[in-house]
Amino acid sequence: MRAYRIEQYGGLDGLVLRDLPPPSAPGPGQALVRMRAASLNFRELLILAGQYQAMGKDMPIPCSDGAGEVVAVGEGCSRVSVGERVILTFYSHWLSGEMPAGGDILGRGGSVDGTLCEYTCVDENELVRAPDHLSFEEAATLPCAALTAWSALTAGGGLLPGQSVLVQGGGGVSVFALQLAKLFGARVLALSSSAERLERLRELGADELIDYVRHPEWHQEVLARTDGAGVDLTVEVGGGATVERSVQATRVGGRISLVGLLTGGPGLSEAFFYRGLSLHCIRVGSRDQLEQMCRAITLHGLRPVIDRVFGFDEARLAFEQLKQGRHLGKLVIAID
Amino acid sequence: MRAYRIEQYGGLDGLVLRDLPPPSAPGPGQALVRMRAASLNFRELLILAGQYQAMGKDMPIPCSDGAGEVVAVGEGCSRVSVGERVILTFYSHWLSGEMPAGGDILGRGGSVDGTLCEYTCVDENELVRAPDHLSFEEAATLPCAALTAWSALTAGGGLLPGQSVLVQGGGGVSVFALQLAKLFGARVLALSSSAERLERLRELGADELIDYVRHPEWHQEVLARTDGAGVDLTVEVGGGATVERSVQATRVGGRISLVGLLTGGPGLSEAFFYRGLSLHCIRVGSRDQLEQMCRAITLHGLRPVIDRVFGFDEARLAFEQLKQGRHLGKLVIAID
Amino acid sequence: MRAYRIEQYGGLDGLVLRDLPPPSAPGPGQALVRMRAASLNFRELLILAGQYQAMGKDMPIPCSDGAGEVVAVGEGCSRVSVGERVILTFYSHWLSGEMPAGGDILGRGGSVDGTLCEYTCVDENELVRAPDHLSFEEAATLPCAALTAWSALTAGGGLLPGQSVLVQGGGGVSVFALQLAKLFGARVLALSSSAERLERLRELGADELIDYVRHPEWHQEVLARTDGAGVDLTVEVGGGATVERSVQATRVGGRISLVGLLTGGPGLSEAFFYRGLSLHCIRVGSRDQLEQMCRAITLHGLRPVIDRVFGFDEARLAFEQLKQGRHLGKLVIAID
Amino acid sequence: MRAYRIEQYGGLDGLVLRDLPPPSAPGPGQALVRMRAASLNFRELLILAGQYQAMGKDMPIPCSDGAGEVVAVGEGCSRVSVGERVILTFYSHWLSGEMPAGGDILGRGGSVDGTLCEYTCVDENELVRAPDHLSFEEAATLPCAALTAWSALTAGGGLLPGQSVLVQGGGGVSVFALQLAKLFGARVLALSSSAERLERLRELGADELIDYVRHPEWHQEVLARTDGAGVDLTVEVGGGATVERSVQATRVGGRISLVGLLTGGPGLSEAFFYRGLSLHCIRVGSRDQLEQMCRAITLHGLRPVIDRVFGFDEARLAFEQLKQGRHLGKLVIAID
Repeated sequence: MRAYRIEQYGGLDGLVLRDLPPPSAPGPGQALVRMRAASLNFRELLILAGQYQAMGKDMPIPCSDGAGEVVAVGEGCSRVSVGERVILTFYSHWLSGEMPAGGDILGRGGSVDGTLCEYTCVDENELVRAPDHLSFEEAATLPCAALTAWSALTAGGGLLPGQSVLVQGGGGVSVFALQLAKLFGARVLALSSSAERLERLRELGADELIDYVRHPEWHQEVLARTDGAGVDLTVEVGGGATVERSVQATRVGGRISLVGLLTGGPGLSEAFFYRGLSLHCIRVGSRDQLEQMCRAITLHGLRPVIDRVFGFDEARLAFEQLKQGRHLGKLVIAID
Repeated sequence: MRAYRIEQYGGLDGLVLRDLPPPSAPGPGQALVRMRAASLNFRELLILAGQYQAMGKDMPIPCSDGAGEVVAVGEGCSRVSVGERVILTFYSHWLSGEMPAGGDILGRGGSVDGTLCEYTCVDENELVRAPDHLSFEEAATLPCAALTAWSALTAGGGLLPGQSVLVQGGGGVSVFALQLAKLFGARVLALSSSAERLERLRELGADELIDYVRHPEWHQEVLARTDGAGVDLTVEVGGGATVERSVQATRVGGRISLVGLLTGGPGLSEAFFYRGLSLHCIRVGSRDQLEQMCRAITLHGLRPVIDRVFGFDEARLAFEQLKQGRHLGKLVIAID
Repeated sequence: MRAYRIEQYGGLDGLVLRDLPPPSAPGPGQALVRMRAASLNFRELLILAGQYQAMGKDMPIPCSDGAGEVVAVGEGCSRVSVGERVILTFYSHWLSGEMPAGGDILGRGGSVDGTLCEYTCVDENELVRAPDHLSFEEAATLPCAALTAWSALTAGGGLLPGQSVLVQGGGGVSVFALQLAKLFGARVLALSSSAERLERLRELGADELIDYVRHPEWHQEVLARTDGAGVDLTVEVGGGATVERSVQATRVGGRISLVGLLTGGPGLSEAFFYRGLSLHCIRVGSRDQLEQMCRAITLHGLRPVIDRVFGFDEARLAFEQLKQGRHLGKLVIAID
Repeated sequence: MRAYRIEQYGGLDGLVLRDLPPPSAPGPGQALVRMRAASLNFRELLILAGQYQAMGKDMPIPCSDGAGEVVAVGEGCSRVSVGERVILTFYSHWLSGEMPAGGDILGRGGSVDGTLCEYTCVDENELVRAPDHLSFEEAATLPCAALTAWSALTAGGGLLPGQSVLVQGGGGVSVFALQLAKLFGARVLALSSSAERLERLRELGADELIDYVRHPEWHQEVLARTDGAGVDLTVEVGGGATVERSVQATRVGGRISLVGLLTGGPGLSEAFFYRGLSLHCIRVGSRDQLEQMCRAITLHGLRPVIDRVFGFDEARLAFEQLKQGRHLGKLVIAID
């Protein structure tokens, strides 16, 4: 089968397309999936760069997110059947409840082989039915990016209708956080860097738009639009360079969900303490949470925002675009 | 001032319109409110019938729910100011956190004087700003009926988008439960007794409609429309005569919020146990929860469903209609 | 191997000792366990009586609770190793998070073969390490009875030091509830039927003792010993005949954990509603909760209370004693 | 009456003993308290230094913590009566539920007058009955230090028996955290700087002792004593200089409660993210939480650890000792 593999660390040159032996027939409780689409997340760049080299599988197939079709099942399978359209969970070992302790920090595409290939064979417990109204390309965006956004909204105590959420920029998680927060009945304040991108976010449901280029002190704008109080929840993607403004933009006793560290560790000032905040690190989520989110996505007919779909041969181009960070929503690779 | 008072227990004849001395000027921390509307709840009939005679104030002014305008404030008031449009909390002593123990089971209109009068003087902590987009008549419906519905949705662990809620009939709490559940992004299954009433519920957002006259075994219909699983949450208004079907209609591990006992105590069978349910009694809610709900109502521009507005002189007629139980939504008395 | 089997329903005569073929070698992810002790729960009598005949496995080996030693492991096992002392989970399919929906209501000894046999072969995920300080007989009491008590204490929001818990009688779950509630720092009020039994409960840590024969209106005693307020949590074992007194004995806004229905469905009066209680049905618990409880038991060196240990040949006698209900704590069958 | 007052900011010279007019008679709902003891917290030094000068009352009487006796009550008081022994809440406006938004960040002794005086007049809602078994000196230590520790243990989801807690040093909050964590049935690992101090912590119940002078890489010791996993909860008092080791010492998915910033803002590295932790800032707690904690302290007869009791004239000496930070437990000033 055709599959990409990380054959050396340090950059995009390490990503190589190979003709690998397909997985053997599914064993008891396993299912064989013909992959139809994979979706990219920023973490893939860190894995390619070798940042987690010591932790992961040697020369893994990259990408955590993907969707496909079950083509064979092993003995005793009851969750899935041949012909079913499925997505794969980010972590192969986290089905319900709290994240298990232990080694797997990288998930699919790091600790185990990922989705950028024609076939994969997994335990049926790692599969979730894809929402019917979504294409394979759309469904492929859910396992990491959408679920991270869902977990960011629910961490530390739920989100009520009428509460306010701050989302930052137009990356995959931020756009999902916006769309999903609207399903919770929340008010969404969105930051971005241009009128054009903000207009897209408005169309997706953002209630308040803040151009952080025009307003480098954007936390002041957040306060101004929340009666001086700050938002109930901030979905923080930046880390080091932004978290302090996020602290200022979050109400006393509010929450920050930390979903990424684009700019390093979240150094916090004393204001974090005096505002009585809590900070929750979001580690994607469990299989059960993925199913729960899919129910919401199905009921509301939510459609993931895809910036561009690449052909299977264009994986390198896709990763280059990911690196440039100018997309809005998700980058997807079709696997035909 | 003109005010209704319960002067004897046993029925509607006990409700008398009097010319009472107005409240004296507001003391420290108090506010004087010119009432503009009062709204009726089923419990008022129980109070009038004398069911709680031993627990309450002697000859109280009836009605827990009301809205009006602040006309004077006492020394040190900071929450409200003259001219502000306000609603009154159901319990005068429950501001935040858990319901305090102790005597007040009846709330406003039972333990203390209610809202069916021209003026009332209360601690400013018992007042919440009325949502701007609502008339006094609409705002008057929120303190008991709407907040009970809100608490029913949030009791025992929150409600996620995509989860399903069963509401029963077209009474005030059930209609609010429907409308509010839509703000949470939930799927709503509604029971009612006629095609016409069900059509109204559909217009208000119900996703599934079940005519319980045509389907006396309505729990079977609920199961059929939830892939055999049952709903995540049932908002139970009936008590004795309905709770067993509610148990059957609720998914394994799901929740029932008990908001009323129209037909007696909730006798439960063994099925309740084997389905692993939890049952939560809803006691309206706190002042902070009322404010939280008002934020949601304001953001979404939700409008309470009013069946009919009566003149201040028509209170008896209003209570008669309440007794007949054919209204959909709320009955309100204007106080001009 | 020697094993008991339920060969007909209706009573103790249905329980037959047979020489059955031992399980085959453990498959991938499985472990073969040499059972050393099984422990009895009241539910076994209901299963024997045929109350759940339609739901369960045909002619199962009885008993959910047991402890033994791993004697062989299949390919890929990582949780357990040969020689390890283990206990079995009550449900084979509930590892973490919420109880999964679906068919298995009976758990081990009903839906799948139980522990009253010499060998059993299970998925390694169904095994939990037995606390080191416990004998096999003691460890065998944990999976159902102790975990039910643990779940009863934690359901619906945790138990804080200084809060009060009411336990009823000297059955297995009640005695564990007493012992475990003391680990939570709670104050325990215990009901029983004789001075002698109450004295045993006092030795186990009960703070307040109430003889329900002398005080048939025992809820009044509970109120008297809680400043008139009632306990924070009642662990209800009786169902129909006792739940109403439990309602009266529980504080406004408090919780009742329903762990058994010795006397039928929990018919509730209006007082349940006016006291604003919540009622939680306890369905044993997950594998992760069992591990969590074992950590607590290990740290505190808690020892289960065993009324009597029977020989493997004395199973019928053990079940007769279970039926009489005069034991205090657990009845255990050694498997030598 | 004799009272200390902060008459200038910058250091201990600003603390002056004066003869001030006593409070006037208690108004409606108020109580007059004859103070009998005040207790010191590290934050008093920051207030004296002028760090919060802009936020607080001008020239306040210092100290948040204190105990005394009610000597007069105003009209309508029902919570307290003359002769009752009471403690004062840290925040005058936070009774239940979540911390209210708004200005009061400093609490008693900063935003309003504190406890280092002979008489104070407060709303009766700000008073909590002192546990009977405690002297005034002991009871005076509860409002800030003990409640902060209690909140640190319960923040973000409760603490179960058998879970592990890391406490740092012998300051007031850390010692209370140790003592209270034992009431929760937790296992406590304690850090300190000398064998002698560690021995005291062992006597108070610490299960594991780590000398951080001998083990500057103390997080390694914590890991070694928790099977490599780390503790479930760390009560962090240091901030900047210690939080990174705390991150390493806390299990994947665990919690850090931040109760102080002795060494600056909590700069966090990426490890915080990859371990999936949550970080909760602790802002003392509500009146209801204080009562809840007092129930636990009363049931268990817990005695606060007092390092030294000073006479009312020795306040300056007491503050000097506080500054030196060599005490273990609390410093108290008697008010005779």
